[in-house]
Amino acid sequence: MTKIDKQLQLTTAELVRKTHEAGIPVMIVFEGIPASGKSRLSNELLLTLDAKYTNFYATKRPDEELLRYPFLYPYWNNIPKKGGVTLFFRSWYAQKLDFEEHGYKKDIIKDYDLLTQEIKGFESMLSDDGYVIIKFYLSVNEQKRQEHIEQTKKNPLTRWKAQEYEASIPTKVYQDGMIDLMKATEEIAPWTHIDYTERGKAVNEMYEVIIKRLEKALKAKEKSKQDERDGAFTEDFTTDMFEDTSDNMSKAEYKELLPKLQARIRELQYALYERKIPLMLVYEGMDAAGKGGNIKRVRESLDPTGYEVNAISAPTETELSYHYLWRFATDVPRSGHIEIFDRSWYGRVLVERVEGFATNKEWQRAYDEINKFEKALTIEGAIVIKFFLVLDKDEQLKRFEERQVTPEKQWKITDEDWRNREKWDLYLEASKDMIDNTTTEHAPWVIIPANNKRAARIKALKTIISVCEERLWNVKKLW
Amino acid sequence: MTKIDKQLQLTTAELVRKTHEAGIPVMIVFEGIPASGKSRLSNELLLTLDAKYTNFYATKRPDEELLRYPFLYPYWNNIPKKGGVTLFFRSWYAQKLDFEEHGYKKDIIKDYDLLTQEIKGFESMLSDDGYVIIKFYLSVNEQKRQEHIEQTKKNPLTRWKAQEYEASIPTKVYQDGMIDLMKATEEIAPWTHIDYTERGKAVNEMYEVIIKRLEKALKAKEKSKQDERDGAFTEDFTTDMFEDTSDNMSKAEYKELLPKLQARIRELQYALYERKIPLMLVYEGMDAAGKGGNIKRVRESLDPTGYEVNAISAPTETELSYHYLWRFATDVPRSGHIEIFDRSWYGRVLVERVEGFATNKEWQRAYDEINKFEKALTIEGAIVIKFFLVLDKDEQLKRFEERQVTPEKQWKITDEDWRNREKWDLYLEASKDMIDNTTTEHAPWVIIPANNKRAARIKALKTIISVCEERLWNVKKLW
Repeated sequence: MTKIDKQLQLTTAELVRKTHEAGIPVMIVFEGIPASGKSRLSNELLLTLDAKYTNFYATKRPDEELLRYPFLYPYWNNIPKKGGVTLFFRSWYAQKLDFEEHGYKKDIIKDYDLLTQEIKGFESMLSDDGYVIIKFYLSVNEQKRQEHIEQTKKNPLTRWKAQEYEASIPTKVYQDGMIDLMKATEEIAPWTHIDYTERGKAVNEMYEVIIKRLEKALKAKEKSKQDERDGAFTEDFTTDMFEDTSDNMSKAEYKELLPKLQARIRELQYALYERKIPLMLVYEGMDAAGKGGNIKRVRESLDPTGYEVNAISAPTETELSYHYLWRFATDVPRSGHIEIFDRSWYGRVLVERVEGFATNKEWQRAYDEINKFEKALTIEGAIVIKFFLVLDKDEQLKRFEERQVTPEKQWKITDEDWRNREKWDLYLEASKDMIDNTTTEHAPWVIIPANNKRAARIKALKTIISVCEERLWNVKKLW
Repeated sequence: MTKIDKQLQLTTAELVRKTHEAGIPVMIVFEGIPASGKSRLSNELLLTLDAKYTNFYATKRPDEELLRYPFLYPYWNNIPKKGGVTLFFRSWYAQKLDFEEHGYKKDIIKDYDLLTQEIKGFESMLSDDGYVIIKFYLSVNEQKRQEHIEQTKKNPLTRWKAQEYEASIPTKVYQDGMIDLMKATEEIAPWTHIDYTERGKAVNEMYEVIIKRLEKALKAKEKSKQDERDGAFTEDFTTDMFEDTSDNMSKAEYKELLPKLQARIRELQYALYERKIPLMLVYEGMDAAGKGGNIKRVRESLDPTGYEVNAISAPTETELSYHYLWRFATDVPRSGHIEIFDRSWYGRVLVERVEGFATNKEWQRAYDEINKFEKALTIEGAIVIKFFLVLDKDEQLKRFEERQVTPEKQWKITDEDWRNREKWDLYLEASKDMIDNTTTEHAPWVIIPANNKRAARIKALKTIISVCEERLWNVKKLW
C-alpha cells in the first residue's frame, strides 16, 4: 500500500504560499460519482492549505432563487481572488448535467449544449487572465465504493448521507455526460483522472499534478510582466461613425411624448416581471453626453423594487483582485428585474485601453470575452440593450463650461474630465473599435445622437419599449 | 396643493455628497401598508441621490434558503459602506411581523419579542458606530389608497401588482404590530410619520427630515475625531486567570483517544445537519498556542461540504468600510453547517484595543455588542462554543524559536509575532477583560490550558462533543 508522501504535502503548501504572494488565483475542481472519494480527497487538500486564502464551494441542486440567475452566477460569485484558492466540490460540470437531467430552464435554454459553450467561455477567459484551473475526475473500484456506502448506511447517524447518494443524478447519466464534457473542455484546462481505490496513491497523484501546474503558473506570471500596454492606437485616427450628433426635438413635442413613454415603460416593467425576463440597459458615451439624465428619464416612472442602477466608477481594491468581469457577472439582474449600467464592462476596452490599465493582450481579447459574456446572458433569456451616446467636441466643451459656472453642477466636473477631453481622439478610436467588435445579433449597439438631450432621451425610451414589446409579444413596431 | 421644493432636493443631494466624503453611512427605512406611497416616495429620493453610492433593498417574504440564516442576516448583508446610502423598502420591521404572522422558525424562536430585542441591538450598535438611521412610516388617506389600488387593477399589465398587495400580511395586523414596534424603537432612532395624501407635502417633509439628520451627523463626526485610543490599561497588571497551562497527556493515550473522538465528531456533524442546527467554534488565545493544529484535529474527519474555516487576518479596505461586526455577521453558518473561526470578532477588544485601532469608546461598548450578537445567534438555534487557549510565556518563546529553525515552519513566524510578544501583559489584561465581560450563559468561554498540545486538542474535541450531545439529545455527559 502506497503511503502519503509528506514531502509532496509540504511542497504543495509552499507553492501555494508562493502563488498567494504572486497574486495567482487557483481553482481546483473535484468531480466524480457519489462515494468515489471527492470529500475525502478534497478535505485532505483543505487541511494542507492555509485557511486564510482558501475557500470551499460545494455545488448544490439549484433552488428556485438560484434559478432566477444565470447558470454560471454561483461560480462567478465563488471564483478566488488573486492569490486565493477555491476548491469546487462538484462544479459547473455536475451543474450542467443536473440542469439537463431535470430540465431546469428548458423553456428558455432550449439546447443544453449552449451551457457547454458557456463553460468553455468561462474557463478560457479565466485561464487567459492567469487563473490556474485544475480539474480532477475521481473514480474508485466499484466494490470499494459499495463498501463505503454500506458502512455509511449502517450507522444511524450517517444513514441520510447514503440516502443522499442515491437521490442524486443517476450514476450512468453522470458518467456518460462527464465523458463528453471532459472531452469538450480538455483543451482549455486539462483533466486528471484519479483512481481513489488506493488512498495513498490518489493523494500523492493529486499533489503531483497541483505542484506541476503551480510551478508552470509561477513561471508564466514572471513572463507576463513584460506585456505591452500602449493601447495600440493609430496615428491621425478619423472616422465618420460619430458624426451624427444632432437629432432635434422641440420642447413641446418632448413634453407631450415623455409621460406617455414613461407610463408605457412602467407597464413593461410589470410585464417583464411577470414573464421573469431580466433586462439589462448599458449606457456608454462621451463624458457629459447626458447618460445620467437619460437614465433618470427611464427610471422616473419605474417601481424601485424592480430596478437597480449600477453606476460604475474606478474599481475598488477588492474588484481589482478579481477577473475584470467579476463585478458585473455578480451583479446581473434576477429574472424579471431591470439593471441599468451607467458605464459598464466596456471600460475594459475604453478607459483601460486609453490609460494603459490593461495590457494590449488584455483589452484585445476582451471583445471576445464580452461577446461571450453577453451571449451567455441572452441564452438564458435576458434582454441586453446597449446605448452609445454621441456628443460632438464643441457641445462637450459647452456643457463642461456650463457645469463649472452652475453651483449645483460643479461637483460633476473634475480635472479628470478635462484630462479625458485631451484624449478625445484616443477615446474615439477605442469607441469605434468597441462598436465594430461587439455589435452582435444578441446584443447590438444603439447609437444615440446626443447633442439634443430631449431627442436622445426619447430615442432611448422608444428603443427600450420597442425591443421589450418585440420580446414580450413578438410584435415588431417602429416608433 | 403644495409643490415639491426643488431647493430641498438640491440641499439633500449636496448633504449626501458631504456625508459620502465624510464616510458617514446612511440607512433610510420606508414602512407603511401596501399602496401607501412607499414606492413613489422612495423612488423620488433615489432619483435625487448619486447612484454611485446609493443602494436599494426591498424586503421580500423569506424563502427557504434565507430562513436557514439568522433573521438579521439579509440586513447585515445590505448595510451601507461608510459614505454609502441604503434605502430599505420595508425592513426588519415588516420582516419581524411577517415572521410572527406566518410562524417562521417558531419551533426555534419561541418568543417573537426576542426579534424586537435583536432589532434594538442592531440599530443601537449601528447608531453608536455613526450610522444614521432614518425611519419613515407612511400612511395615506384611505379613499386615495383604494383609488390607487383600483387604478392598478384596471390595467391588465399592472393587475398582478394589485394582487400582490392583497396577498401580503393583513393590513390591520401590520398596522397594530408597527405601532408597538415603533414605540419600542423610537428611542434608538426616531420615526417620522408621513402622510402621503398630498404628494408635494410628503416629499418636502421627507427631505426636511433627512436634511436635519444629516446636518447633525456631520457635526457629530467632527467631534468624534478627538476620541481617545490608549487602550485604558492598568499599570502592573497581574491575574491568575491564565496560570493553569499544563494539562498533560501521554502520546499513547492521545493516539488511542483521537480517532474515537474524531469519528464521533463526524457523526455529530451529520446529526447537526439533519436537525439543521448551526455550530460556531471560536478560537482565541496567545500566539503559537496551537489554534491551527487544534482546529486541524477537529476538521480532519469532517465532511468538507458542511464546514468552513474562517481564518481572520487584518481587515481589508472593504471590511474596514463597514461596522466591524459586518464581516462576521455576513459569514455565519447556514443551518446545519459548522463555521470555525480562527480568531474572530474578539479582535475588537484584543488587538484593536492594544494597538489603538479602536477608540476606547469603541472597544468598551464592544463587549455589549458582542454579547448581543452572540445572543441573537443562539436565539435562532446556533450553538456557539468559544475556546481560549492559554500558553505560558516561556512555552511561547520555545515555540517561536522552534518555528525559526524549522524550514517548513519559518513562514509562520514574523516580526509581528515578536512585537506582539513584547506586549504580552497588555494582551493578558485585554484577554482577562474580554473573558470577564463576555462569559454569558448562551455562549460561555472554555479556557484550555495549551502548554501540552495533545491535552489541548483532546479537551477541545471533548467539549464540542459534549455540548453538541447535550443539545441534540439533552444528555449531560462528562468526558
